[in-house]
Amino acid sequence: MNPTLTTRMANLRARMAETGTDLVAIGPSSHMRYMADLSPHGDERPVMLLVSQDYAGFLMPALNVDSSRQHTDLPFFAWADADGPDAALEQLLEATSVSRISPSVVIDETMRADFALLLLDALPGAKRRFTQDTVGYLRSRKDEAEYKALKASHLLNDRAMAAGFAALKAGVTEIEIAAVINGFYKANGATPEFCSVCFGPNGAFPHHHTGATRLQHGDAVLIDTGARIGGYPSDMTRVGYFGAKPEGFDAVHDVLDRAVEAALAAVKPGVKALEIDKAARDVITAAGYGPNFLHRTGHGLGIDIHEAPYITGASETVLDEGMVFSIEPGIYLAGRFGLRLEEIVIIRNGKAEIFSEMPRHAVGA
Amino acid sequence: MNPTLTTRMANLRARMAETGTDLVAIGPSSHMRYMADLSPHGDERPVMLLVSQDYAGFLMPALNVDSSRQHTDLPFFAWADADGPDAALEQLLEATSVSRISPSVVIDETMRADFALLLLDALPGAKRRFTQDTVGYLRSRKDEAEYKALKASHLLNDRAMAAGFAALKAGVTEIEIAAVINGFYKANGATPEFCSVCFGPNGAFPHHHTGATRLQHGDAVLIDTGARIGGYPSDMTRVGYFGAKPEGFDAVHDVLDRAVEAALAAVKPGVKALEIDKAARDVITAAGYGPNFLHRTGHGLGIDIHEAPYITGASETVLDEGMVFSIEPGIYLAGRFGLRLEEIVIIRNGKAEIFSEMPRHAVGA
Repeated sequence: MNPTLTTRMANLRARMAETGTDLVAIGPSSHMRYMADLSPHGDERPVMLLVSQDYAGFLMPALNVDSSRQHTDLPFFAWADADGPDAALEQLLEATSVSRISPSVVIDETMRADFALLLLDALPGAKRRFTQDTVGYLRSRKDEAEYKALKASHLLNDRAMAAGFAALKAGVTEIEIAAVINGFYKANGATPEFCSVCFGPNGAFPHHHTGATRLQHGDAVLIDTGARIGGYPSDMTRVGYFGAKPEGFDAVHDVLDRAVEAALAAVKPGVKALEIDKAARDVITAAGYGPNFLHRTGHGLGIDIHEAPYITGASETVLDEGMVFSIEPGIYLAGRFGLRLEEIVIIRNGKAEIFSEMPRHAVGA
Repeated sequence: MNPTLTTRMANLRARMAETGTDLVAIGPSSHMRYMADLSPHGDERPVMLLVSQDYAGFLMPALNVDSSRQHTDLPFFAWADADGPDAALEQLLEATSVSRISPSVVIDETMRADFALLLLDALPGAKRRFTQDTVGYLRSRKDEAEYKALKASHLLNDRAMAAGFAALKAGVTEIEIAAVINGFYKANGATPEFCSVCFGPNGAFPHHHTGATRLQHGDAVLIDTGARIGGYPSDMTRVGYFGAKPEGFDAVHDVLDRAVEAALAAVKPGVKALEIDKAARDVITAAGYGPNFLHRTGHGLGIDIHEAPYITGASETVLDEGMVFSIEPGIYLAGRFGLRLEEIVIIRNGKAEIFSEMPRHAVGA
């Protein structure tokens, strides 16, 4: 096992001890990639990594044993299609020495329901939690290598965003602008992760599907895009307009920019995530747009584009050095336009540091 | 609701009555696409469709309400990030009139563990099953429109496969051949789903990751590829060689072709899936390669590339008219090569009909 993975496994066991966790069960997910650098073929065949204080091993479909063995030294409990996974899982549970009397089990919340229930059925009376205070706790505190990877990913994204806005012209479609951005990613060795381009009233849907809408004079433009390079993704939203701003654009943009600044100013270790949400939301509510801010202020970002910590009005998560998350207030005016400004920040040296170097002002085209 | 969806909902309720099911819970998956033509934004926010005899409605994150509303007329029980989903789920459960005393609940096996456990925690004592005899039962019996879509998808795949083999030359990498095939898909309006290209000994890993290996004289070549067009995917494996066949290639190829033929001959309504697996496996075992056939004989294919029915040695599933699945025996010789021949078939007019029109002989290059 490489030194990073050895450190992570030791850190996980320390968290398990602190939280009274007997067993951690990780599916074929980003959690597995983080803990074991393994991204096994994901299908309906149960695969999971079980970790106890004394043992760590995989339940593994037999036909994936050879290819997975190239990536990890941990033991495999293989099962063949003709037999099903039950016996292999039982042997793996034996190896972990986990108590069969109401063990405290952490379940990877992202694993398939049938994988999770296979395990829970094998551990009657288990007290279950998800990963937030074990694997999630570790993943939300980025190390220096992760900081550098995220920085590089976001600097590339700045250039992709600029290329997208530079391609705006009368009659161009949302899909064509997304293709420009995705082409930029690929030409620079990055893998496109998502690219939402919204013209005019489409921006009022926070999860609009980029489509065949053509750009017209007077449209607001919203681009929310990100790509992966060096294993880590980027994420950013910027807005602009074509020809002229729709009525009310500047006022909304100004409110959002102040909301971002208020949230940034509130970020420091020891503060609860809900305070960051409140800082942004208060600015928007005071401006009269409270009902138009339809979503939380942000989400964590690391191996996954959405991960802990979530910046919501209900989140008691206490922010800590090394945490990375978005600050992305939005105001959505149905039938008119929607704007959102999104920065990804890391808590570093006790305050928020923005990864992107692109200003947040509206891009005119 | 369009006529197809109305028919599917009525069919689902008939299956629920036959199987004594009180509630079906469907996640943001292919099951949801099949039942409601909706593919909602999939993230960590719980979303599910609940169906009882009297009612059908969605638990839906508030920020996806507007974009989802464009695709379905079914009612939404929306929840905001700041509140969480519990209260909305409770209201939706009330609307379904589901019994709170040990209801019989079907869970979409592919939904996230946290979604499934959110529902199960709200229904203490629920008797749970997965979808195999409700939604899965319906999805595994294709209608005429699905037959035509699958046929068209596979005829395109034949041409993509031919393009891939035609591009073989000394020193080309696996990734480059995959790029040729994926480029062909895109140029013809299809979306690449997967493309596994294996040169030489790499073919001995059933789930080899297509990589930088360069083609050499005497290499076996295995290509397993598929794309989606018209909503339905294709899937096919063919093999070939470059310059000369490695020793033993012809014998292994012949065994596999006979195994495919034996399985095809065994397919008819009323036969169990395990009998198809046995028909293929017996040929391989008789030839002395039993231990080298590492996986099941096949998987169903429809909206998903892997779905019911699974053709395994343990599957008691009774085959029926309209079912679609792969027959794909393989023989893997570590350090030398691996071959697999895969056809997708539909049971039509009482027997197996192959979608592809490409012969299974080895392609020399």
